Amino acid sequence: MKIAILGGTGDIGEGLALRLAADTTHRIRIGSRDAERAETKAEEYRTELDSRGIDATVAGFENEAAAAEARVVVLAVPPYHIGDTVEAISDVLDSGDVLVSPAAGMKRDEEGFHYHRPGAGSVTRLAADAAPEGVTVVGAFHNLAAARLANLDADLGIDTLVVGDDEDAKRTVIDVAEGIEGLRALDTGGIANAPEIEALVPLLINLTEHNERLHDLGVRFQ
Amino acid sequence: MKIAILGGTGDIGEGLALRLAADTTHRIRIGSRDAERAETKAEEYRTELDSRGIDATVAGFENEAAAAEARVVVLAVPPYHIGDTVEAISDVLDSGDVLVSPAAGMKRDEEGFHYHRPGAGSVTRLAADAAPEGVTVVGAFHNLAAARLANLDADLGIDTLVVGDDEDAKRTVIDVAEGIEGLRALDTGGIANAPEIEALVPLLINLTEHNERLHDLGVRFQ
Repeated sequence: MKIAILGGTGDIGEGLALRLAADTTHRIRIGSRDAERAETKAEEYRTELDSRGIDATVAGFENEAAAAEARVVVLAVPPYHIGDTVEAISDVLDSGDVLVSPAAGMKRDEEGFHYHRPGAGSVTRLAADAAPEGVTVVGAFHNLAAARLANLDADLGIDTLVVGDDEDAKRTVIDVAEGIEGLRALDTGGIANAPEIEALVPLLINLTEHNERLHDLGVRFQ
Repeated sequence: MKIAILGGTGDIGEGLALRLAADTTHRIRIGSRDAERAETKAEEYRTELDSRGIDATVAGFENEAAAAEARVVVLAVPPYHIGDTVEAISDVLDSGDVLVSPAAGMKRDEEGFHYHRPGAGSVTRLAADAAPEGVTVVGAFHNLAAARLANLDADLGIDTLVVGDDEDAKRTVIDVAEGIEGLRALDTGGIANAPEIEALVPLLINLTEHNERLHDLGVRFQ
């Protein structure tokens, strides 16, 4: 399957691209607003994968071109760019395509990071509201530490939580996620249940800041 | 140390009482608005502990009497009873006593459970606002499945997250929590960071409802 990762030049995009390329047979399309930057990063990822003897398809494009041929499009962009990003690719999305929202809104103050719930209810809902007719949105990949994902020597052994109102789309994303070795994807119901998942992101940062021995934290439900 | 568990006749109170009695040398004071009910439940807990050859001090009292001699008082009551409960024991609390808030506010709709953030910011903050001068409040024990705690044959291997604005009080609660075998207590900063911890409670319920093979879920940060 072709998977586009928009914002695929950023930290979490890099981690997802490398893991999906290393562990699955999906073809990865790195998207950026700047095509040249996407190509440069895709080349970097290929070099990293090559050095491990992994032959994977990773290519860079401007966001719209990255999304055009993909069946699954990951919106690895900051929450305040979700609306713009979905709008920019709306014309090239086909009915049945699945958008994946991994972003969480946060605010920082002197005490720590706090979940900043968007007016729409969640970032996942924001993406769903922006999506064109026939394109479904699934929330996933929120609570993954980018550096740990990007380090292919690091074991995962962690969970990602998946929400969506369309069962088929959610199944597709769960299958993609579980293609990554050591990642378990857990169905957490509909998009209405996204806020508590997105709130894990500031929680993980606060935990890391208060516990020196914890780095690149993930979470396992057991 | 004497530890009072107010609402100690409820599910989470029972689990905490049994685990603390079984794994530590603290003396456990079960509190209830109804002294007779507290005594009956304390007797039940002693019978359960006796059957395992555990000699522990567990006794039942009306909330005020339970709290009077305790250094740590766990408020294992629903969020809407936090204010009343703290008020009812205010006169018997001593400066330096520590109140522990394990409650989370939730709402349920047809999609699942959702974190219902109190106007004060969190249930832990609610408790802190109600506490008399010199008595500190620490949030802990939110994300523990009551039935799993209460089943002393069940392994834990999970975390509890601890927040508080007073480092000594937080240290006291972390030490109490880590007295329970298989429970790791992680400092998560100040009370301002409580909402994301309390939001774990509906998240765990939603996960259980959507995954048949997951029961009495806890969480491990790794």
